[in-house]
Amino acid sequence: MALRAALRSKGSLSGLLSQVFSPSSHVRVCVSPLTATQQRYNSTTAKVKVDFDKSTGIAIMHMQSPPVNSLSLDFLTEFCISLEKLEMDKSCRGLIITSSQPKVFSAGLDIMEMYGNSPERCGEFWKAVQEMWLKLYSSSMVTIAAINGSSPAGGCLMSLTCDYRIMADNPRYSIGLNETQLGIVAPFWFKETMVNTVGHRTTEIALELGLLYNPQDALKIGLVDHVVPQDQVLTAATETMAKWLTVPDHARQITKSMMRKPAINKLRSNREADIQNFVSFITKDSIQKSLGMYLEMLKKRKR
Amino acid sequence: MALRAALRSKGSLSGLLSQVFSPSSHVRVCVSPLTATQQRYNSTTAKVKVDFDKSTGIAIMHMQSPPVNSLSLDFLTEFCISLEKLEMDKSCRGLIITSSQPKVFSAGLDIMEMYGNSPERCGEFWKAVQEMWLKLYSSSMVTIAAINGSSPAGGCLMSLTCDYRIMADNPRYSIGLNETQLGIVAPFWFKETMVNTVGHRTTEIALELGLLYNPQDALKIGLVDHVVPQDQVLTAATETMAKWLTVPDHARQITKSMMRKPAINKLRSNREADIQNFVSFITKDSIQKSLGMYLEMLKKRKR
Amino acid sequence: MALRAALRSKGSLSGLLSQVFSPSSHVRVCVSPLTATQQRYNSTTAKVKVDFDKSTGIAIMHMQSPPVNSLSLDFLTEFCISLEKLEMDKSCRGLIITSSQPKVFSAGLDIMEMYGNSPERCGEFWKAVQEMWLKLYSSSMVTIAAINGSSPAGGCLMSLTCDYRIMADNPRYSIGLNETQLGIVAPFWFKETMVNTVGHRTTEIALELGLLYNPQDALKIGLVDHVVPQDQVLTAATETMAKWLTVPDHARQITKSMMRKPAINKLRSNREADIQNFVSFITKDSIQKSLGMYLEMLKKRKR
Repeated sequence: MALRAALRSKGSLSGLLSQVFSPSSHVRVCVSPLTATQQRYNSTTAKVKVDFDKSTGIAIMHMQSPPVNSLSLDFLTEFCISLEKLEMDKSCRGLIITSSQPKVFSAGLDIMEMYGNSPERCGEFWKAVQEMWLKLYSSSMVTIAAINGSSPAGGCLMSLTCDYRIMADNPRYSIGLNETQLGIVAPFWFKETMVNTVGHRTTEIALELGLLYNPQDALKIGLVDHVVPQDQVLTAATETMAKWLTVPDHARQITKSMMRKPAINKLRSNREADIQNFVSFITKDSIQKSLGMYLEMLKKRKR
Repeated sequence: MALRAALRSKGSLSGLLSQVFSPSSHVRVCVSPLTATQQRYNSTTAKVKVDFDKSTGIAIMHMQSPPVNSLSLDFLTEFCISLEKLEMDKSCRGLIITSSQPKVFSAGLDIMEMYGNSPERCGEFWKAVQEMWLKLYSSSMVTIAAINGSSPAGGCLMSLTCDYRIMADNPRYSIGLNETQLGIVAPFWFKETMVNTVGHRTTEIALELGLLYNPQDALKIGLVDHVVPQDQVLTAATETMAKWLTVPDHARQITKSMMRKPAINKLRSNREADIQNFVSFITKDSIQKSLGMYLEMLKKRKR
Repeated sequence: MALRAALRSKGSLSGLLSQVFSPSSHVRVCVSPLTATQQRYNSTTAKVKVDFDKSTGIAIMHMQSPPVNSLSLDFLTEFCISLEKLEMDKSCRGLIITSSQPKVFSAGLDIMEMYGNSPERCGEFWKAVQEMWLKLYSSSMVTIAAINGSSPAGGCLMSLTCDYRIMADNPRYSIGLNETQLGIVAPFWFKETMVNTVGHRTTEIALELGLLYNPQDALKIGLVDHVVPQDQVLTAATETMAKWLTVPDHARQITKSMMRKPAINKLRSNREADIQNFVSFITKDSIQKSLGMYLEMLKKRKR
């Protein structure tokens, strides 16, 4: 609901809205018509595919934005709309988030959104990142991250908002808030989410060094809750979800809210300042320059 | 002292006071007369038996409210009066809390206090639960829980208020704040006590799922500090107490207060709101109905 | 800068300033003149020796105040002046703190500063302790404690302010905030620094009992990050520093500040009250008496 309100109230975002839903857009929203007897439906946009099984109350969101599910403004908008739809459907009690892309859960914030753009566009982008975090961290559904690939930076943040994290046991995959390695800084609400998960000291050392952990190390510090072979990630997520869904929803939701409210309220009451802070930081010449160098490096790697 | 003040200031509790001390009451307060040469005395009420050894400065409270030391209003009142008496006796430096009932430390809040009662009575009950927590968590004595049986919900809370927790190594015993399993919610001060003990993430997952841990698992997450064979629980508690009592009282008390003051102040300045919150939640039709179903299930089990 | 400002603004400290720099003082400040080709310089005062290698950007501070690097007012003043000089030198990116004394990193606050002195002198001393903590905990340099000996009380505090702690693996060495064992109390900012490092529950039990840990136990609870053989402490510190210095300074500094700002601000806005609190506590007859007894005991040991 918050996103919709945001879209209404922010003129600067209405262009985005029309872009997403305009006929010329590459976004297709295909919802199969529901009948009383139907137990499943799919809701597919260009970047997010949702399988919802009404008989279990469990939805699976497949992120399918090639090549690495970067969190662009478009992606975040579609993601939040899909999420909100599930949130409002009372029959949906659990959400599993996973990736359709090989080897990557999500590569995190799209650097192209931060490089060479106007302050206004940067602000819109950051507002969408906030929105994703607020929606996921406060979701009344049980949320499980089925981390079937690497999950740095914003991908790690997305995982951290979930109630439970299951990661594929591939030592080549990594997870962590590695922003400092790129010369940028994880904002306070990234930090609070990580402190709430792995504690203050582990967060301090991880954020200062921008550490990425392989699945076994991530398990040791509590950054993920469970590590299973690659081909069992989704099965394990479904089994774990079944266990969580035995708990009465109402009591679980109030408890979840009690645990997370302080962090959520802190961002809610500081959104504008946080956006300004991000915009003024990211548009600095020095930061733009180091992002530019990073992008050059990425290009050279590809060759 | 707080309870006595509360009893004085709350007309609604005076009935309870007379009930506890009236000749027709089932409560017997038997304090052996003290002489200068006496080293031990017993203070026994119906539900709490206290052995205090003046030579060591250590008191042992045996909870003896059959069948499972449920925390009823009567029990809590007697418990707090006994506790306050020890607190005011400067020669009492350490308190060990244990159970006289087989297999159970305390089964937690008495569901009968929450089912089918008037809002006023529910409020009195909740005030007594608060009082127990405030008294124990801020006790100037060294407090050790000798957990010689299962300790769910309120029993776990009582344990968590102590300075140290020793549990009998019986895999059939369990400990945890499992409120959500019953469709109810551990209030913020239960949560804060647990966060202060096992950290934010472990608390989040434990409270959302209403997890009960066996002694070895409880030890792993830090919910208890030591696990010993059943017949050594009290010995271990006494040995640990001797170690704690080597520390200068004054410095230890100030330190304890510094660690716990934020949580204590938070409840102290929100007692009335917390009571209203509990009463309005627990008297809801839906909650009453699910407590009723739970009681039915318990009855069937007994048959 | 804060110390200098403090020295300027506080008349009561100007005596100290002249004492440190007066010709009759035992303090020698020897800075080799720098030339463009020089890569190293030494800055030596009586109690602190600094080796700074411009080619690596790493400074090593050797505490050399016999016999046990006690944190006296003189020591703290020299320490802070050396620290500030490095802080202001933009070419100095990393600081390793270690001891030149055998078997001891630092024995902590100098008891002679707390015993038999005027309230005014006690206040000056405490302000210097605060200053050391504020400077170290908020340092923009990477700071590593190379703990090559025992490190109780104030020595442990000093270690805890660093970004990383490496301790010599000698079971006779110990580290911890053991104030309560002496009948005194670690103030709130000692406590916060420890909570930020090892969590609430471990801090509670450690501070209430005044526990000292041997290196292996300190590693287990996270009080130190790495334990190596005695003769490899400095090498390990240098290697770790090299790793930390690969991270872009600016992003790391902002991140460090974000993690530590709440604790730092809490002391900054309560310095005077904290000084008054310390002075009124330490000048109590009962505390002076127990410090006196402790000093007597130390004297007897030496005989």
